[in-house]
Amino acid sequence: MITKFLILDESSLSVLKGQKKLCIHAAWAGEGRGSERNCSSIPPYLPPTAVNTTLRLHHLRAAMAPLNISAYIIPATDAHLSEYIAPRDARLAWMSGFTGSAGTAVVTQNKAILWTDSRYWIQAERQMDCNWELERDVSIRSITNWLIQEIAEGDLVGFDPFLFSVDTFNSYNTDLAPANRILKSIPDNLVDKIWTDRPPLPADRPTSLPDSVIERTWPMKVEQIRAQISINPYKPTGVLLSALDETAWLFNLRGNDVPYNPFFYSYTLLSMDEIWQVLFVHVERITEELKVYLNSSCYTAYCVQLIEYRDVRTYLADYLLRPGVRLWVGTEYTNQALYELITPQEKLLTSTYSPVLTTKAVKDSTEQRILKEAHVRDAVAVIQLLMWLEKKVPEGTETEITAAHFVDECRSKQKNGRGPSFETISASGPNAALAHYSPTKETARKLTVDEMYLVDSGGQYLDGTTDITRTVHWGVPTHFQKEAYTRVLMGNIDISRTIFPSGTRGVNMEMLGRRALWEIGLNYGHGTGHGVGNYFGVHEWPVGFQTNNIPFQEGMFTSIEPGYYKENDFGIRIEDIVLTVPVTTKHGNNYLTFQTVSLVPYDRNLINTTLLSPEQLHWLNTYYETIRHGVGPELERQGLKVEYDWMMKHTAPFLIAGASAVSSFTLLVTALLPALLHHLL
Amino acid sequence: MITKFLILDESSLSVLKGQKKLCIHAAWAGEGRGSERNCSSIPPYLPPTAVNTTLRLHHLRAAMAPLNISAYIIPATDAHLSEYIAPRDARLAWMSGFTGSAGTAVVTQNKAILWTDSRYWIQAERQMDCNWELERDVSIRSITNWLIQEIAEGDLVGFDPFLFSVDTFNSYNTDLAPANRILKSIPDNLVDKIWTDRPPLPADRPTSLPDSVIERTWPMKVEQIRAQISINPYKPTGVLLSALDETAWLFNLRGNDVPYNPFFYSYTLLSMDEIWQVLFVHVERITEELKVYLNSSCYTAYCVQLIEYRDVRTYLADYLLRPGVRLWVGTEYTNQALYELITPQEKLLTSTYSPVLTTKAVKDSTEQRILKEAHVRDAVAVIQLLMWLEKKVPEGTETEITAAHFVDECRSKQKNGRGPSFETISASGPNAALAHYSPTKETARKLTVDEMYLVDSGGQYLDGTTDITRTVHWGVPTHFQKEAYTRVLMGNIDISRTIFPSGTRGVNMEMLGRRALWEIGLNYGHGTGHGVGNYFGVHEWPVGFQTNNIPFQEGMFTSIEPGYYKENDFGIRIEDIVLTVPVTTKHGNNYLTFQTVSLVPYDRNLINTTLLSPEQLHWLNTYYETIRHGVGPELERQGLKVEYDWMMKHTAPFLIAGASAVSSFTLLVTALLPALLHHLL
Repeated sequence: MITKFLILDESSLSVLKGQKKLCIHAAWAGEGRGSERNCSSIPPYLPPTAVNTTLRLHHLRAAMAPLNISAYIIPATDAHLSEYIAPRDARLAWMSGFTGSAGTAVVTQNKAILWTDSRYWIQAERQMDCNWELERDVSIRSITNWLIQEIAEGDLVGFDPFLFSVDTFNSYNTDLAPANRILKSIPDNLVDKIWTDRPPLPADRPTSLPDSVIERTWPMKVEQIRAQISINPYKPTGVLLSALDETAWLFNLRGNDVPYNPFFYSYTLLSMDEIWQVLFVHVERITEELKVYLNSSCYTAYCVQLIEYRDVRTYLADYLLRPGVRLWVGTEYTNQALYELITPQEKLLTSTYSPVLTTKAVKDSTEQRILKEAHVRDAVAVIQLLMWLEKKVPEGTETEITAAHFVDECRSKQKNGRGPSFETISASGPNAALAHYSPTKETARKLTVDEMYLVDSGGQYLDGTTDITRTVHWGVPTHFQKEAYTRVLMGNIDISRTIFPSGTRGVNMEMLGRRALWEIGLNYGHGTGHGVGNYFGVHEWPVGFQTNNIPFQEGMFTSIEPGYYKENDFGIRIEDIVLTVPVTTKHGNNYLTFQTVSLVPYDRNLINTTLLSPEQLHWLNTYYETIRHGVGPELERQGLKVEYDWMMKHTAPFLIAGASAVSSFTLLVTALLPALLHHLL
Repeated sequence: MITKFLILDESSLSVLKGQKKLCIHAAWAGEGRGSERNCSSIPPYLPPTAVNTTLRLHHLRAAMAPLNISAYIIPATDAHLSEYIAPRDARLAWMSGFTGSAGTAVVTQNKAILWTDSRYWIQAERQMDCNWELERDVSIRSITNWLIQEIAEGDLVGFDPFLFSVDTFNSYNTDLAPANRILKSIPDNLVDKIWTDRPPLPADRPTSLPDSVIERTWPMKVEQIRAQISINPYKPTGVLLSALDETAWLFNLRGNDVPYNPFFYSYTLLSMDEIWQVLFVHVERITEELKVYLNSSCYTAYCVQLIEYRDVRTYLADYLLRPGVRLWVGTEYTNQALYELITPQEKLLTSTYSPVLTTKAVKDSTEQRILKEAHVRDAVAVIQLLMWLEKKVPEGTETEITAAHFVDECRSKQKNGRGPSFETISASGPNAALAHYSPTKETARKLTVDEMYLVDSGGQYLDGTTDITRTVHWGVPTHFQKEAYTRVLMGNIDISRTIFPSGTRGVNMEMLGRRALWEIGLNYGHGTGHGVGNYFGVHEWPVGFQTNNIPFQEGMFTSIEPGYYKENDFGIRIEDIVLTVPVTTKHGNNYLTFQTVSLVPYDRNLINTTLLSPEQLHWLNTYYETIRHGVGPELERQGLKVEYDWMMKHTAPFLIAGASAVSSFTLLVTALLPALLHHLL
């Protein structure tokens, strides 16, 4: 699944780091008179979908007054800078009515502003009442410029430091400090204070992973991280883990606190000088069994002390009072609430990512094997969908919603299925040109042979997380649709088949995904790929093709997902998950390439093979061979004979029109020529 | 000319920003028993090239003692972070004996260490005595790690803030501050205090450029920069210019204070609230004529106040005392000595580059035209060299030195010639595998038909700066040499012909220069290109393909220079200067491509056309047409008939073996077939 949309310049990209997707509600794509507010009419018009925020704003402003703050910032994330947040963390949505996944609100005593990007502008106009203004720019610079104009020099700007990463805080502060607008950290969230019906903590308990999906036990992982701590020249005494997947990875635990991602609220203090690790959790949710698993009642090197989640700041402050301690934190996923406690500077060591995130990025051999296995079963589900649609769409009975349900259902029947890894994007015609569109009753189009159809979906399995996009056309695509699709495919292939030195950064290769499009003046406005994990987030950073991603090493999984979107017409995206694998070259060592582990054929109906180079065609045929060998046996094992035949038909090799086709023709002529000439002369 | 060598990882790259080339002496490539020191023999062996530094170190340590500093850092740059420095700024060379262009020294009371990169290790062993240790790593992290191990917590590390950019200072400080080693700014350079025979300031006077090479007068440029200052939301009151090319560009002035670059020592304070600009120069060198040119005796909006160069800190400190001032500085080229005066933070606005550097990066139409014209004359000189070598080398009379002299001589005869833009790299066989090799009497190889030869050279002309590399073989190259050369050429072509959206960063495209090499496990360890200017530095940042370069816009010039180097055997580099130009695409607007303005054919003897794609061959043929149309008339105008014929011969079109060759064969067979079949049947 793509991660960002319509953001092409680097500055905006870096600014968006902390603002991840929420996706509690689908994007709004339908049209309708009066479905949007009109605040300039008299009286103002509000659609039924708008939320009355007058009282909420009144209470928030009342809470702001005694703190002497002129403005209060409300981001759309949680204390772990999570991509998906629980309903109890949807403070921005509760305050403003706007439920889109990305946005930032600022409230002053007389204004309330929401900043969000283009994919959510219509939705915001439908959900917000006239207390709110909409700003159509998402950069932090846009917010700070507004603040500098709106409030006076020397004024205070309040914010909840739990909801700001260190990097995000620094971006705000870099802009505001020189203008003498002062950020004031308020750890007790003001929205929570007035949010009377705030949803409670989910009751679900964290659980440990079965041995079958684990190569490294948690004490082995602790040892691995400690080894990195001990060789660091700054001699840190511990690592503080703030992102939810860091703790989940370290202890081989999973939970159910946020949608789509199997995480649970937690922090970890992994120390060298302590004889135990400290895990901050809601202790009442930890079963006796899990306490045994975590050695939580002992005091030797591999015992885990359980501390209440809410006490993390108190405990940390105490820890930092000890002489000689120095904490290692990653600035992209540590919140400012913990970071601001770590003073003076001698007690701090920072890197962009914690050693847990960089270690987790490289999968061990078990993780590689089971993640590939999950993709085989996932391919079965997607092949079932595509075959079913091919049959049903001409009958006119299916919609974007029924298709989404079908693929979700197919996945749920596969072994180890744990539900979708994100809300399925099932989009026909113009809907596919909207980023992150997911169908609703209001917007869903009927699927027809006259429109292109894009389906971007993924599953959580106990052994891995999947994410794949296919775009198809069941009728006669236009010449332009075929050319655009083929060039998107060329981009996917060109990245996939690239040979590169280990340690090359994705951002320095991702233009290969765009180059065939650039040649005819086309492009796409989102990133080209993101890491994926083993039963983890579908966007597993810091692997991928973005500016802030780490260099590729053997054993990393990433998506490759170029696309093209024609407004009000159609959308194309081709997404596969690939594994970085070593490759033998004629002269060099330590070179890598990508091995595609998503195993679903592309739509031949949309491929113009004359645009492909012989090398691209060769790659395509090799990939199709891989699908046959990879998914064929699984389809047979599951008794899916019709699906097997469909797969075989759609993976028939392409004739290589360039080099080899010509040379076989040449061979033929060369063989015939003496005979011909003999007769001729 | 390449700018960095054997530095592949980003972290080292960013760390090297402030450490530019000096090139006062050629790199040392010759071999010889006893030419290097042996400090572990008893007694230690020192070659005659080693410099006795005992007394100098004694004096430096005596100067350090009263300041209470445990270590003193000596970089290899000047107060303007210049790439080429004047002899009076060669403090590192004077202290250590080592004259290489890149390096950093640290002296403590009992140790003296030099850090330099691989291209200078042998040279350092020949020039340094046994007072000095050599560290074979150039990252700032390596220096700071050494300092943390060597000196105690709380100790002071002295440095001259004039010789540190803001960014370099921050890199040191980021490492040292958490370890409680404290950087102490010492604006009075300690080496200067003990350097009794320090060379004086050059006598040359700055001069203004003639109208023929100027489109924008200096008041127009001042206006252009002021417009950018006035729209900045932080409302700066002025821009401080610290790099030598910033002042030279702004006032259309040139000088002769450093080798190869036509610059003069200067700073500029371009203010909004002053009615004049402030130019810090050695006032005694400014002629009466130049004072008139600069309006230096008036007090209206476009008058320039001349202040003594040495008073820059005093003047700046006074300026900063005024209420409401805020200075805009670029952190990459402003030295810490000026930056540290700008407190509190409200008086400061930073960007990586000043608005002068980013404005200068885009050439106006006159600059574009005359820089292209300079390249036509420059091509004549290089063609003269290549033709002459082709004739003379088989006679066995020429060496790397005579070849270098020949091309320098050819350039000097061209109109507006102002000498070489850097020391000519003329390297045969294994010498070409050494980065930045320039021949010396000791190392120069005779040129033969059995070795490859690389010549990287450039000229300063009143209308432009040139830089071109060609690699040739006059005999029979090996299969591997041909393949490597062809793949380097494929890299050059692939970048040159790329179509990309305006605003794309060079660093995100430069892998196209490496991709054909990567495929067979080859690579090169330097950058892929750098900006060039109009009678300016041959490395004109911030344009180019490095991480810290700015996005490409229409009107920028850059080099494209992939290469391949086989140690102890040969070196290949193919370098051209290109201009970013708009291109029409089928569907999109605002796309760019590169137009090659270097106009010298590649060595056909080294091109394996079967490796090239039809598109690459087509590009090559089009480029050769451009050479014929571009340089042909100039060769005729200069009466160089033999050179004209040589150029025509070497730009003959290549047969396009792929698509069109096959299709013509197909056509032939298709035409013949009915007749043949008629006879056959």
